[in-house]
Amino acid sequence: SPRHYEDGFHSTGTCGVFGGTSACARLKGLDTVHTACAFAIAASQAAGLRENFGTMMKPFQAGHATESGVVAVDLAALGWTGAEQILEAQRGFFHAYGGTYDPSAILDHLGKPWTFQSPGVSIKPFPSGSLTHPGMTELQRLIRENSIRAADVAQVEVGTNHNMLNTLIHHRPTTGLQAKFSMEFCMAILLVDGKADQTKFTDAVVNRPDVQDMIGRVRFYTDPEAEKAGYDKMTTILKITLKDGRVITGRADFGKGSPSNPMSFEEVAEKFQGCAAFAEWPKSKADGVIELVRKLEGVSDVRTLTALCSK
Amino acid sequence: SPRHYEDGFHSTGTCGVFGGTSACARLKGLDTVHTACAFAIAASQAAGLRENFGTMMKPFQAGHATESGVVAVDLAALGWTGAEQILEAQRGFFHAYGGTYDPSAILDHLGKPWTFQSPGVSIKPFPSGSLTHPGMTELQRLIRENSIRAADVAQVEVGTNHNMLNTLIHHRPTTGLQAKFSMEFCMAILLVDGKADQTKFTDAVVNRPDVQDMIGRVRFYTDPEAEKAGYDKMTTILKITLKDGRVITGRADFGKGSPSNPMSFEEVAEKFQGCAAFAEWPKSKADGVIELVRKLEGVSDVRTLTALCSK
Repeated sequence: SPRHYEDGFHSTGTCGVFGGTSACARLKGLDTVHTACAFAIAASQAAGLRENFGTMMKPFQAGHATESGVVAVDLAALGWTGAEQILEAQRGFFHAYGGTYDPSAILDHLGKPWTFQSPGVSIKPFPSGSLTHPGMTELQRLIRENSIRAADVAQVEVGTNHNMLNTLIHHRPTTGLQAKFSMEFCMAILLVDGKADQTKFTDAVVNRPDVQDMIGRVRFYTDPEAEKAGYDKMTTILKITLKDGRVITGRADFGKGSPSNPMSFEEVAEKFQGCAAFAEWPKSKADGVIELVRKLEGVSDVRTLTALCSK
Repeated sequence: SPRHYEDGFHSTGTCGVFGGTSACARLKGLDTVHTACAFAIAASQAAGLRENFGTMMKPFQAGHATESGVVAVDLAALGWTGAEQILEAQRGFFHAYGGTYDPSAILDHLGKPWTFQSPGVSIKPFPSGSLTHPGMTELQRLIRENSIRAADVAQVEVGTNHNMLNTLIHHRPTTGLQAKFSMEFCMAILLVDGKADQTKFTDAVVNRPDVQDMIGRVRFYTDPEAEKAGYDKMTTILKITLKDGRVITGRADFGKGSPSNPMSFEEVAEKFQGCAAFAEWPKSKADGVIELVRKLEGVSDVRTLTALCSK
């Protein structure tokens, strides 16, 4: 139900509990009855609000969803009981969190195909919200092809549907976490520094005078054309006005890392190296993980990987 | 917002997180800024569905709310960040969980008086849902004053507003936990066994043929008069038809244990002894707790009490 997200729920936190539960129930080999119980236990932990975007609670909400799935399956395996129809019942999840639901969206459709296969999984090259990615990808292309320099930029206009404006809520960010939910910052940092990796999303970088000045030149608005593309689309329309009067325009419907513009294994590995360095891992440790993942299909026990990733 | 409860949320689980957070923030001496953060952390754990009533998840939801308050305050004290206006913001708690809110319900009203003072706190004599209590209290009176015997009862009609029918959801219970949310069982067990303490809310008792037979004689319906009393009222209208044709009627707006019909200290102590015995505590341990609580105002450190209650 679109009401769910519009009203403020963060679906990664709310619906995410069922993803974690499904995965854990499968790993633990639960039967149908116990899996249904696990869903009921998970539903009573489903939470997450978009007002918390741009604070430490955003990643908390994603992690909490996963943790809730683990707890739900462990309790169900011990014989803990819950309602048998927690999703579709009158006093259940769909009704409470969304007001209504459409069974035709899932009946006879589950696994035909699995989302993992089609459209496929997105991997984000940037540490900011996924909705910033089409605009960032397109801006990188425009900067490269037109040799745009920050000093030449008079204004940047970024148009999307209203849903993206309602998700990237920090229009004048002052912290690194707010910057992750700021289209204005994501545009500004690419123009000023040419890249947007983990090292850029810090309070110090966000508050640099040149960055704040560029943020002030970005206008993020609801564009009728993007609105027409649809509520669940990421269409982003760019218009860059240079100080010499030149106007450069672009449009992207998908970002780098989406199934239609995927990251290569080497690009993902490079991102991982950046994350590992940011966490002050020794490079050899990150290299070991990358080499194991390269031959993941041949690994007989996933604990080989988790052991490599732990401290 | 009435939508919140009507749609299936269990407000003890959802709104309860803020009670736990307020208490812990006060105990920990948090300032305003950190308390607001704690509220934002708590809001992202607010969950609980009424479809889970009558399963182990019902008490889980109450406990989870309290735990979430402890976690929220501990994290806020460590400097964890959350939104500054998580309750009233457009993407915050009130909007997501209830669609809207009425600030006049709390502005200039908080603490004038505190709910604890007026109307006061209810203590439940029975281990079933609070909404079963007016009917159970009135039925006990009718049984006593009319010397009603189970064998003489042809039918029991119980009328309430639709909200109570929508909360006491188990009309033909088969487990002890379902029985706690079954007006039919609560009426039946008082008629058959004369009391309704912890020992009655077990699968074995619920499935006794005489109990199931009496459950079948109870008709629980929405009564226009109770409906008129109001959505948030507990008015319960009883009509008992005996096999000899006699009809006995009664009505209660409150149950035993409510501020207008409070339990005495000795009655609460007796309930506690029953709970302690059910949990197989030695009687001397329960006696010690009761004697300490009797002089609670003179106890300088609450840990004296918690130590007595722990194993």
